[in-house]
Amino acid sequence: MRLPGPGHHAPLEPKADRETVRRHNLSLVLRAVRDAGEVTRAGVSARVGLTRAAISSLVEQLMESGFLTESGKTFSGQAGRPGTVLKVARTGVAGLGVEINVDYVAVCVVDLAGTDRVRLVEHLDNRGAPPEQVLGRAALIAARALTSAAEQELHPVGVQLALPGLVSSGAVRYAPNLGWTRVTAEGPFADALAGLRPALPALPVRSENEANVAALAELWFGGLGDVRSFLYLTGEIGVGGALVIDGELLRGAHGFAGEIGHVVVSPDGPECRCGSRGCLEQYAGQSALLREAGLDERTGARGVAELERRAREGEKRAVAALGQAGLMLGRVLSGAVNLFDPDAVVLGGIYPPLLPWLSPPAGGELAGRVVSGLWPTEAGRLRAASPAADAARGAAALVVQDVLADPVTYAVRAAG
Amino acid sequence: MRLPGPGHHAPLEPKADRETVRRHNLSLVLRAVRDAGEVTRAGVSARVGLTRAAISSLVEQLMESGFLTESGKTFSGQAGRPGTVLKVARTGVAGLGVEINVDYVAVCVVDLAGTDRVRLVEHLDNRGAPPEQVLGRAALIAARALTSAAEQELHPVGVQLALPGLVSSGAVRYAPNLGWTRVTAEGPFADALAGLRPALPALPVRSENEANVAALAELWFGGLGDVRSFLYLTGEIGVGGALVIDGELLRGAHGFAGEIGHVVVSPDGPECRCGSRGCLEQYAGQSALLREAGLDERTGARGVAELERRAREGEKRAVAALGQAGLMLGRVLSGAVNLFDPDAVVLGGIYPPLLPWLSPPAGGELAGRVVSGLWPTEAGRLRAASPAADAARGAAALVVQDVLADPVTYAVRAAG
Repeated sequence: MRLPGPGHHAPLEPKADRETVRRHNLSLVLRAVRDAGEVTRAGVSARVGLTRAAISSLVEQLMESGFLTESGKTFSGQAGRPGTVLKVARTGVAGLGVEINVDYVAVCVVDLAGTDRVRLVEHLDNRGAPPEQVLGRAALIAARALTSAAEQELHPVGVQLALPGLVSSGAVRYAPNLGWTRVTAEGPFADALAGLRPALPALPVRSENEANVAALAELWFGGLGDVRSFLYLTGEIGVGGALVIDGELLRGAHGFAGEIGHVVVSPDGPECRCGSRGCLEQYAGQSALLREAGLDERTGARGVAELERRAREGEKRAVAALGQAGLMLGRVLSGAVNLFDPDAVVLGGIYPPLLPWLSPPAGGELAGRVVSGLWPTEAGRLRAASPAADAARGAAALVVQDVLADPVTYAVRAAG
Repeated sequence: MRLPGPGHHAPLEPKADRETVRRHNLSLVLRAVRDAGEVTRAGVSARVGLTRAAISSLVEQLMESGFLTESGKTFSGQAGRPGTVLKVARTGVAGLGVEINVDYVAVCVVDLAGTDRVRLVEHLDNRGAPPEQVLGRAALIAARALTSAAEQELHPVGVQLALPGLVSSGAVRYAPNLGWTRVTAEGPFADALAGLRPALPALPVRSENEANVAALAELWFGGLGDVRSFLYLTGEIGVGGALVIDGELLRGAHGFAGEIGHVVVSPDGPECRCGSRGCLEQYAGQSALLREAGLDERTGARGVAELERRAREGEKRAVAALGQAGLMLGRVLSGAVNLFDPDAVVLGGIYPPLLPWLSPPAGGELAGRVVSGLWPTEAGRLRAASPAADAARGAAALVVQDVLADPVTYAVRAAG
């Protein structure tokens, strides 16, 4: 029998060596300044619970390494002598996020404060192209973003790829809409990028499911307020999904959690690229929606804009396609809400401008089928993703998160 | 922007007062002995990372309070002088679990080691009976269990109720199959039990969803091996469910997660007591199964045994009802697996003896519809719950968990 207790399975007051403690405290101070935006040393001291002397020493090291800057004097009503204001540096260390999707590539450079400083989005058709060609195109866009970042004195220390499929241990196990099966993306992307920047050190590259990083972006930048547990859906060619529980991404036992696009909604429905039938994305994915509305499913973002225009004009096929998609979304969401009991459902990708037509049928299903009865009574639980939060920014912020967790490691690279 | 770092948001080496540290360490030592079964003081010292002197002092206090006993001498090949062997006490502090279900009440007393020492199961029909009457019946059975426990010198320090419905903050928000809406169970049960034992101090009573505690019982007593993330389904009059992720129960934002019985499987299917249509329990719940097989749905456990007998003999309606239930189970499970990516699905309640008929159609759906493709390749992912793990035992173990987490609190009660 193993009953996990609420406490730690270790004695209190663990002994950590001085170097470990200092690295931990450097991260603590850097994150405190980042969270505060602008703060004095005394303010940092109050936030993290270390002495003024300790804070000063840690701040000095973080400034020398280029993570913090100070400016101006504060003469506010606070007690004690006025101090200078600390901020995280807006130049230097940064993160690079690269979302490779079926019909576009989006690249984002994020600074230590989380601001997206460079953003490039290129529409292109990656379906059927060999993976190395797709990764090469994405590397080209990433290299352009790195040039723009360098002009702003921003130097990404790592690359996070975001891919629309099952990603585990650096490989894409399966991405049905790209047509990829067991594709190693990190190495080829790193090589392609290094080939475009021969004079510069190679950047470490990691990969993650696209909806997962979009959900993290929503958590970090989406203005969700008190919402810490939510189900995230992103309408793309397919339908991606992710689950955030108490501010943590649920990855699943093998890293494949959140595949809401392949939840069956009509067992004998249309064949899906995944091999099953009647998956949600066969009703609510971008391709299915455009096809049902009588539009060319290869028109991508233009097609979605046209669908919205037609729906606004009351064109029957457009309205019917959206009504059907909303119904199927609501049906699957009602099941997911019964399983998860989240605070909210967030709809991203192509969905936000389409919510006026998707929400009523989806909301009806949620009201009728969520057993707790909580969903019809509170507004705002079915919400549009923030335009400030997308997978590329979330991916770039994941790199920055690593820097914040252990700045010492990256100080070396930043100086190098 | 708020990027949660992997470390703690507090400086290392937090200062805790001596009393807090000692209480924490008493719990640590008690849990170490419980986990080990039998262990010397030196063994405990090695396990928890405190000095022999500190362990001896903590062990002495735990023995004085009746939580630990020592016996015999060990002359094993271990270094150092031989020590006596410590075990958790098999008398004294215990936990009482009471599962109140639609057609039975099960009561269990568990000792500190997690062994179920008293078990009473009574079949009765709780449908339509007023809640206070149902709670009174359950209190009567609980009182009999307490008498049996006292004969074994076991004294439960708390009661955990397990109820088939949405339970939150001590109240049953909704239990459709019992016909309960907004019923406060804890107070009335405590009063009924106190009335039956007027000379004894009243026991604190808490309540929890029945499937949640059954899933915890499976985690603690089910022999799941490496499986730490699983979806748990329990076939009762309805279908209960719970999700365990990395050894932790997912409770959801409002405490209502895991309601797999009310995931829709056929949108225009039969009306469900929850108010929706075509919920899984309308196909795979005990009542639905018996009805479809042409048996009286009020016959309960006898009916299920008869269903199994008929299926074994190849009786057509019985086989068809189980085939349909298995298909619907598999359909809903495929969606849940796509969302959660668990290590395993565990089927409890009435399902274990019915798996020979449920598994083939359910497995077919899982193989065809789980996008990661992981589910057909590994056997044993769809597994029967252990007969040693049920909701009543899980509930009783929850009380014991509280004792293990802070024995000092319960030493007072145990002595009192």
